[in-house]
Amino acid sequence: MQKIELLIKNGLLLTYDKEPFIGYIAIDKGRIIEFGNFRNKYDAQEILDATNKIVMPGFVNTHTHVAMSYFKGMADDLPLMEWLSKHIWPVENNFLSADFVRDSSLHGCAEMIKNGITTFNDMYFFGDQTAESAQEIGIRAVLGEGVLDYPVANYKNADEIFAYITKMNSKYKDNALIDFAIAPHAIYTCGKENLIKAKELAQKLDLLLHVHLSETKQEVADCLKRHNLRPAEYLDSLGFFEQRVLAAHAIWLDEREQNILAENNTSIAINTSSNLKLASGFDSFASYLEKGINLSIGTDGVASNNNLSILEEISLTSKLQKALNDDPTILPARQMVEIATSGGAKALGKEKNIGSIEVGKNADLICVDINNIQSQPLYNPFAQLVYTLTSENITDSIVNGKIVMKDRELVNVDEAELIDKAKYYKQKIIDFRN
Amino acid sequence: MQKIELLIKNGLLLTYDKEPFIGYIAIDKGRIIEFGNFRNKYDAQEILDATNKIVMPGFVNTHTHVAMSYFKGMADDLPLMEWLSKHIWPVENNFLSADFVRDSSLHGCAEMIKNGITTFNDMYFFGDQTAESAQEIGIRAVLGEGVLDYPVANYKNADEIFAYITKMNSKYKDNALIDFAIAPHAIYTCGKENLIKAKELAQKLDLLLHVHLSETKQEVADCLKRHNLRPAEYLDSLGFFEQRVLAAHAIWLDEREQNILAENNTSIAINTSSNLKLASGFDSFASYLEKGINLSIGTDGVASNNNLSILEEISLTSKLQKALNDDPTILPARQMVEIATSGGAKALGKEKNIGSIEVGKNADLICVDINNIQSQPLYNPFAQLVYTLTSENITDSIVNGKIVMKDRELVNVDEAELIDKAKYYKQKIIDFRN
Repeated sequence: MQKIELLIKNGLLLTYDKEPFIGYIAIDKGRIIEFGNFRNKYDAQEILDATNKIVMPGFVNTHTHVAMSYFKGMADDLPLMEWLSKHIWPVENNFLSADFVRDSSLHGCAEMIKNGITTFNDMYFFGDQTAESAQEIGIRAVLGEGVLDYPVANYKNADEIFAYITKMNSKYKDNALIDFAIAPHAIYTCGKENLIKAKELAQKLDLLLHVHLSETKQEVADCLKRHNLRPAEYLDSLGFFEQRVLAAHAIWLDEREQNILAENNTSIAINTSSNLKLASGFDSFASYLEKGINLSIGTDGVASNNNLSILEEISLTSKLQKALNDDPTILPARQMVEIATSGGAKALGKEKNIGSIEVGKNADLICVDINNIQSQPLYNPFAQLVYTLTSENITDSIVNGKIVMKDRELVNVDEAELIDKAKYYKQKIIDFRN
Repeated sequence: MQKIELLIKNGLLLTYDKEPFIGYIAIDKGRIIEFGNFRNKYDAQEILDATNKIVMPGFVNTHTHVAMSYFKGMADDLPLMEWLSKHIWPVENNFLSADFVRDSSLHGCAEMIKNGITTFNDMYFFGDQTAESAQEIGIRAVLGEGVLDYPVANYKNADEIFAYITKMNSKYKDNALIDFAIAPHAIYTCGKENLIKAKELAQKLDLLLHVHLSETKQEVADCLKRHNLRPAEYLDSLGFFEQRVLAAHAIWLDEREQNILAENNTSIAINTSSNLKLASGFDSFASYLEKGINLSIGTDGVASNNNLSILEEISLTSKLQKALNDDPTILPARQMVEIATSGGAKALGKEKNIGSIEVGKNADLICVDINNIQSQPLYNPFAQLVYTLTSENITDSIVNGKIVMKDRELVNVDEAELIDKAKYYKQKIIDFRN
């Protein structure tokens, strides 16, 4: 019998090319080497019994600010500018440091795994420290270092950020879990010169560009006033979309802008919770779907969400879109699950490696308990995932072939220590604010 | 020391007249006899340690169809009429019986407790059997027997239903957990004569009237065509609101109808998930709030939701309302928690007995774990409940002074048996449909 590292047995497998079926998955050297109904074929070092569980691709969270974990629930139900200027920014300015980012990211990465996320696409600062924490937890990450025109974190200017990204890209080039990306924050914080520099560096290093785009009406109005163009038109005029772009939010795009994104294969990270909670707004995605724009799901940071549940996002997005379009058939459950997995993989240019159960792909998988009162009766696992279950039903997580959560306990970190650290920082933040 | 039945110690108590504080609750004969910071004052038969937990009033779910539990996830993402006529109705017609209602309600009541619901307001048939199941689980219930013009369940006509309600009202008059109500299904299934009879019987027996109202645009259009009045105006013209009414859905009310509800102290059960998922629509509740209409939260049945999470409903409702009103301050977290507890109590005319932690009220309480990665850091328990936590964080439930769930395990029923029964019925339903 062939020796392998991990065998998942007896799970309800969700593959996207056939109906769900009970089967096995053989994993070796981080990859899926076979899945189906074989038995007694492999000598596995470790066996994960997935009886009474769904086994599916892990979620890809395409827009986060993971190091903001300690700001979760710090201030809510406030007007956007008051929330930012009186709450988030002062605390962020005071606490932002390499150590804070490492600790807060560790908490955030732990929370990601608890929510079934096996890959996240971040936008923040001190990516090197977030990379450390992601590796400690064992989660896959694309770390977009934020680019702004003004001094931020420990950078005096954008050129220092570009130099840092170049250095980090070399450092993590062969890392199995970590990629870097370039994250010009938004068109209103990043001028023409730096947007173009970001794009050119992204082309040179073949990195993803991760940008906030058309999140608020204000952004559109300001852009029209300043450039006589709408945000996506403006970016297009700079040649920004010549490189792979992940546009976060993108809820105020007109027809022409949607065409620009479609033509350039630009993906969108949908952030419904954050958009609703901050009263940024919403848009029907019917035309996005018609144009074939690739959709993916982001949670945004916990400061504005206030959680990292992809299951909540796909439930919310599907239901909101049904009502907005007066059409209960739009974005059905199965499509939402695909958007949150393979859609995310494609958005990050990782569709060859993650996002579905396929031979040769990285084994980034989660198990979801379906043998409980809430989950039963179960007619359709896709509908159950989207409309019924919560992240707490996710019991196990495997990233790159390694089990990182088992029976809802994180394998690589001490959760009690993380909780203590969160309480410690909370107190420090409260003390600072008083 | 005074002997009492139950002492909850060391919980983070959410009372609505002061800020959350760590304290104790003394419970005897089903009621809260004291809460605060006392120690060593009572000799309790049982002690519930609520360290690291929120202790708060249980949720009041004001609109459900609990016996539809076994239809959860049976059919989704379909146009309303196709969903009803090809999926729900044929199965319902085939399976509806006293036994089915008892079993399916037992599952539904179990699910309610798991979601922190300590009282639910139902609309269905065979209320006697639902009452049995509710008592078995130990949950408080107001059981609205559905009234329709045509034969339904085992009733030949509405008069038989009225006779049944009268009988049930006598049977359960002194029951600590069960009340009956009269539930004219809707203005399009219940004609003028039966609406008036229902109201008169409700007045005679002093029962709640529970009705679907203005759930869809179609209902409004049909009513205008038929009666030249909008739905709430039509009911008002029949004197329907002279008795206590709980109007479920109510998302297509115009200004005049909202005034009718406000003037008559009619409460609304908000069912955001169901309204979005079925593409029924949504409405801004800003004017409802201004007029002082009492709002409460319903999950609707699991056939259309597909879960019974009040935490999801309050998160969804608050966030959607923020975006609809372009105002992130509307329906803040604390208000949403009050709507889901004391708002529900008021909607059912039970505000003197349930809905808040007050001396003399029934001890209907839940504990929510806050010592985990998702819950931490915790700045504001209200924000955490609404925007961060899911039902799975609810660990314990007390109804009428009795513990009915402990460490997430139901005390009075065997969950494995319930799961087996759900699987058995699922197979029967699948067989019938094939």
